[in-house]
Amino acid sequence: MSVILYTYDWLPEFPRGFVREFRVRWTLEEIGRAYEVATVPASPKAPEHRAMQPFAQVPALKDGELTLFESGAILLYLAEGTPLMPEASRAEVTQWLIAALNTVETASGAWMSMVLAQRMPAFFGPASTPEAVEHARRGMRDKLDALETLMADRDWIVGDFSVADVMMVDVLRVVENEGELGDYPSLTDYVARAMARPAFGRAMADHMDHWRAADAARATKLSV
Amino acid sequence: MSVILYTYDWLPEFPRGFVREFRVRWTLEEIGRAYEVATVPASPKAPEHRAMQPFAQVPALKDGELTLFESGAILLYLAEGTPLMPEASRAEVTQWLIAALNTVETASGAWMSMVLAQRMPAFFGPASTPEAVEHARRGMRDKLDALETLMADRDWIVGDFSVADVMMVDVLRVVENEGELGDYPSLTDYVARAMARPAFGRAMADHMDHWRAADAARATKLSV
Repeated sequence: MSVILYTYDWLPEFPRGFVREFRVRWTLEEIGRAYEVATVPASPKAPEHRAMQPFAQVPALKDGELTLFESGAILLYLAEGTPLMPEASRAEVTQWLIAALNTVETASGAWMSMVLAQRMPAFFGPASTPEAVEHARRGMRDKLDALETLMADRDWIVGDFSVADVMMVDVLRVVENEGELGDYPSLTDYVARAMARPAFGRAMADHMDHWRAADAARATKLSV
Repeated sequence: MSVILYTYDWLPEFPRGFVREFRVRWTLEEIGRAYEVATVPASPKAPEHRAMQPFAQVPALKDGELTLFESGAILLYLAEGTPLMPEASRAEVTQWLIAALNTVETASGAWMSMVLAQRMPAFFGPASTPEAVEHARRGMRDKLDALETLMADRDWIVGDFSVADVMMVDVLRVVENEGELGDYPSLTDYVARAMARPAFGRAMADHMDHWRAADAARATKLSV
């Protein structure tokens, strides 16, 4: 049965390619599960959105009667019973999916928020001091150092490609996009290897098409 | 079979009561599973620690041949097949456990890091500007507002007490300890209700005993 993936109706250029719904698209393409896309207004947030996702974030997923949010929980749910979640390594795959969210993205996200606040203070709040940004960057690099050592002798984080790789690579892509993986050859290769997967390509094409269609719909609306 | 919980050999006063190993102790007490405690040096970190936990954090857990880290993954693993993870609401319980880590703690942790950096800059890095701290506080309060509305008409986050409540309350305790739950009566009640559980009390007593024993061992060592 087809599931419904909720994303925003429109977003400006800069977050496109990195919205957290992408993780879900990529997973759906990997497991070959059909899905439809539905939208919620990015601004202002709608009561129907909060009813489904109390924090008014995306993604959310509907599968029949079940509504789910949190990209990590959606990925674990979709991967269940597929090759992305091998039964024999369930605990380790879960561990690495959560490490991606809670150890790596906690550090990279804290740094990224500061970078965005420097770049677009009106949108992302007051800029931090250069010392605080550098401190956050070092915190992120501590995690990347550990991960670089670990990935030096493996292709995927636990055995074959799993849902933990979807999450970890989706977190690392943001760092790479900021030019911060230069000192990390194993992580650079790891990200490139994952992004070369056909499922990644299909998901990214559909993700970008969504925003182009949103631009077109917006242009039509504005010209009426 | 008894599992082994890894924590630090010693820590100063201020983080005691709030170390992430506590979540695991609490879960073990809730499910009535026997455990032993083993330690790793807090500073400097040992190679044996990194071999088990690449980011040299705690907690880690050993169960026979399996070694696991990330508090979220350990809690999901231990809860499996117990009343803390009811099969019928597996997806929602997982969703709320991850929301606690990845939506609430991401926001409260970002704010808390800035508060600690103001309080102890030598230990927690350069202090942020007051504007940046207030921005982080508002970010946290956005999440708490949503959670307050949600908890107004329920005792536990999904049906009966589950592993999602262990995680959410453990995240909220830090906020409450800083006096920041004053405007949130439902969340204050929720935290109190969870902390009144006998399993919480046993786990906290053992957690604090561990640090007292560590102080005693340290005093003996220094006096030799």
